[in-house]
Amino acid sequence: MTDHSFEQIRQYIRETSGRIDQALQDVLPADWTVPAKLVEAMQYSLMAGGKRLRPILLLSVVEAFGTSLDRAMPAACAIELVHTYSMIHDDLPAMDDDDFRRGKPTNHKVFGEAMAILAGDGLLTHAFYCLTQCCRDYGLSAERVLAIVAELAELAGPRGMVGGQAADMEGEQGVTRLDQLEAIHARKTGDLIVFALRAGGHIAEASDEQLAALELYGRKLGLAYQIQDDVLDIVGDESKLGKRCGSDEQQNKVTYPYFLGVEACRQMVAQLTEEGKQALRDARLPDPRKLMDLADYLANRDH
Amino acid sequence: MTDHSFEQIRQYIRETSGRIDQALQDVLPADWTVPAKLVEAMQYSLMAGGKRLRPILLLSVVEAFGTSLDRAMPAACAIELVHTYSMIHDDLPAMDDDDFRRGKPTNHKVFGEAMAILAGDGLLTHAFYCLTQCCRDYGLSAERVLAIVAELAELAGPRGMVGGQAADMEGEQGVTRLDQLEAIHARKTGDLIVFALRAGGHIAEASDEQLAALELYGRKLGLAYQIQDDVLDIVGDESKLGKRCGSDEQQNKVTYPYFLGVEACRQMVAQLTEEGKQALRDARLPDPRKLMDLADYLANRDH
Repeated sequence: MTDHSFEQIRQYIRETSGRIDQALQDVLPADWTVPAKLVEAMQYSLMAGGKRLRPILLLSVVEAFGTSLDRAMPAACAIELVHTYSMIHDDLPAMDDDDFRRGKPTNHKVFGEAMAILAGDGLLTHAFYCLTQCCRDYGLSAERVLAIVAELAELAGPRGMVGGQAADMEGEQGVTRLDQLEAIHARKTGDLIVFALRAGGHIAEASDEQLAALELYGRKLGLAYQIQDDVLDIVGDESKLGKRCGSDEQQNKVTYPYFLGVEACRQMVAQLTEEGKQALRDARLPDPRKLMDLADYLANRDH
Repeated sequence: MTDHSFEQIRQYIRETSGRIDQALQDVLPADWTVPAKLVEAMQYSLMAGGKRLRPILLLSVVEAFGTSLDRAMPAACAIELVHTYSMIHDDLPAMDDDDFRRGKPTNHKVFGEAMAILAGDGLLTHAFYCLTQCCRDYGLSAERVLAIVAELAELAGPRGMVGGQAADMEGEQGVTRLDQLEAIHARKTGDLIVFALRAGGHIAEASDEQLAALELYGRKLGLAYQIQDDVLDIVGDESKLGKRCGSDEQQNKVTYPYFLGVEACRQMVAQLTEEGKQALRDARLPDPRKLMDLADYLANRDH
């Protein structure tokens, strides 16, 4: 990836995440009466400086098909709501018991545990409301929106993200094989990334073959992303990461470098990225450049 | 209400809740891989002897229109999943901190807090999956199903049930007026009952006028139900209730009898029930007898 295209995709990410931030500000309909504290708790974590990776992927798919981004914004918000709820619940004392996330106090540290649980519940529930708004004004068929609803419920639910979290908890310290680690990450982070790509495909009225290719790209990218995260925890620059390095080892977390070593991990990230891009090429999307560059960007990121 | 019709409706409730129990046993698709502990935690609370009031109301609406109950079963399951998730999260130490529900240890007492949080998250997410299954095999339009999805997300989310829970927590001890109490209960319990009735209406392809009448019936019934609960906490038979009486007063909970006294509450339950039934009469449903009898039954229940 050239310096020029790296800079270009960074610029695209900045602009797109700005657009998503704006949409998230108005994610609750203005005529709804919602307790002020609950809104505050939901907004606090929504606006706590997330990278917006999942909605950016969704919007990049829509852009690859030349479809209007307006039609996709409610779904882009929905996926960020789901991601945010999962962070809030994961950080709770009964779960990972984290006091800080991205340098800020976690939700329950600011609003208390009860409100943090409710903020998570509210974000998750409202995500489904957002999805239903995709078709209202932009002419997407109800069948397509319903497919997106079903896929979010599957990929974020007991078979997907929630299941991955439960498996991770159950298996803590007990993961002794690479395939177990992969199975957990495929659910904990992979499934929501796959959802982002397939949802973008549905919004752009992709064919089943194109949806399958986007899913494959998502699987490869999701795994590469996780491995890169683990590598950065060992060799990254703390000032860029915004967190302490070496925290995985301190917490006795089983990681990819633990099984494979750093160098093999780097090769694996490069290979997965190439396989993801190949899936896109095979799918012959009208203009997959942003998705291609995003894959390269994520593989080469330093935070 | 005659002894005969009282016995008949009790029989109907028994049969229908048996049918719902059966459907809930198979609520997760057989070909999904879900961590065993998570399934166990979800099923534990789902099968902990709930009254199935909300799905029974939904099915009774469908029956009032003469529509196939098969078409409605996924939605009937969905609403019980949402109700169950809300109980699990409400019972958590950070929320109401309850050790027992319906005479059994609460979810977090059996499975631990982390798994209880995830079981709740899983049930809520999966409820939306269930809704999407309503149309797949039974010819309900995607538009109708999408309307049901949007209404569940609204009535169970930040504007509805979750908002009510947050308002209740925020206002604890601070509720000094009857209208504040009513506003909280309208969200905490009323909204999900309204959803049950409107969802049943959508499944039976009801008109907007019929949906509005069902909603009004639901509002009246929901409020009557809550007042009757408060009354039974004072004058009920503990062996029938399966819980201690007087617990509201012990916990300094502000209740309807606290504001109005028991006798005025009883009159209010009777009046609300009559108003609910009148809404049904005005809507001219093909056969509203079960819904009529259910309203009477709930007003006269002793547990």
